[in-house]
Amino acid sequence: MQVAIALFPRNTALDAVGPYEVLQRVPSIDVVFVGHRRGEVRTENGMLGLICDASFDEVPRPDVLLVPGGIGTRTLIRDEPMLDWVREAHQHTLFTTSVCTGSLILGAAGLLDGLTATTHWAAADILGSMGALYTAQRVVEHLPQRIITAAGVSSGIDMALRLVELLVDRQAAEASQLMIEYDPEPPFDSGDLGKASEATRLLALEYFTQRH
Amino acid sequence: MQVAIALFPRNTALDAVGPYEVLQRVPSIDVVFVGHRRGEVRTENGMLGLICDASFDEVPRPDVLLVPGGIGTRTLIRDEPMLDWVREAHQHTLFTTSVCTGSLILGAAGLLDGLTATTHWAAADILGSMGALYTAQRVVEHLPQRIITAAGVSSGIDMALRLVELLVDRQAAEASQLMIEYDPEPPFDSGDLGKASEATRLLALEYFTQRH
Repeated sequence: MQVAIALFPRNTALDAVGPYEVLQRVPSIDVVFVGHRRGEVRTENGMLGLICDASFDEVPRPDVLLVPGGIGTRTLIRDEPMLDWVREAHQHTLFTTSVCTGSLILGAAGLLDGLTATTHWAAADILGSMGALYTAQRVVEHLPQRIITAAGVSSGIDMALRLVELLVDRQAAEASQLMIEYDPEPPFDSGDLGKASEATRLLALEYFTQRH
Repeated sequence: MQVAIALFPRNTALDAVGPYEVLQRVPSIDVVFVGHRRGEVRTENGMLGLICDASFDEVPRPDVLLVPGGIGTRTLIRDEPMLDWVREAHQHTLFTTSVCTGSLILGAAGLLDGLTATTHWAAADILGSMGALYTAQRVVEHLPQRIITAAGVSSGIDMALRLVELLVDRQAAEASQLMIEYDPEPPFDSGDLGKASEATRLLALEYFTQRH
């Protein structure tokens, strides 16, 4: 089983690497990182380079497509060659998935028309402008349409565990969860917009502006 | 403030990328990925290439050192040049930290002698053989010694949030948590050895053997 994770310039690394780590623990699942061309792409802050091992053209029919987010998505929503690849791949996938603002790309490709979907809280309006019905859930799945979207960054880990259950079975997903010791103990409770204070929200947005 | 994350062949990507994502959200913190030499290293399964932007020699005095894990650590515990670098860097760090089997390297460098420390559950015996007192906690911190170790893979995210609190303040850590939407909703509850079934533990070990 082949999972293609799309990389691009100015990606958010954890969006891609969280699900990768969950999925690759299961020996029947192979992950390939694909991009516009083979070679390095940088995260949004430039601090980390990740390697694409294949171009989009080289992986036309992955079993699963996963599109991570990052500020780079804002230009990709007008990148017709990439959107065409997403549309074509989706015709044959078992599941087409996104993490964070990766859902903007699924939306731009027309895959979310009239569907509920999620994204990073700071991008909810943009997603709504693309025909999707934004819903503030951590993971939104549409099994008949084979589309699953996850909220911001770390939510891809939760989504990928569910994906393993769908692709293999629950036992496989639980084994992966144990191998990555995903028994979270966040020291604070500000990971959701409904739980964080207004001061935290404003500081988060200020940080975002400073880093981009 | 400079955080050096050490990369090496056969690393576990999420060990490094989880903390990176938490830390880089805070504009006063810069992350640099360092390795034996500049350039690409591969994860333990070969599926992902990550770029080291500097060699160990080029980053002798990071403010924070973070050593992730991966099966590659089993050879690094006899890699005297790297262990020397870790020892030297530790003389000047604010905190020296590890995720998963990264603590084996801290142990091999002599930094954990007589201290409680943690690692991936499957490597507890090895850590114990290195002078550390293994303890099955998610994060173990020794502030006077400036050493913090985290358990397997995903625990680095929890550790990094605490690290931001120590390096900056709690408000910064909470802003980072909100930006990465770290409000976990694991669909299963098998992320800890005390919670997973024996069948899950055996399957996890079988997967590990098949992937390495």
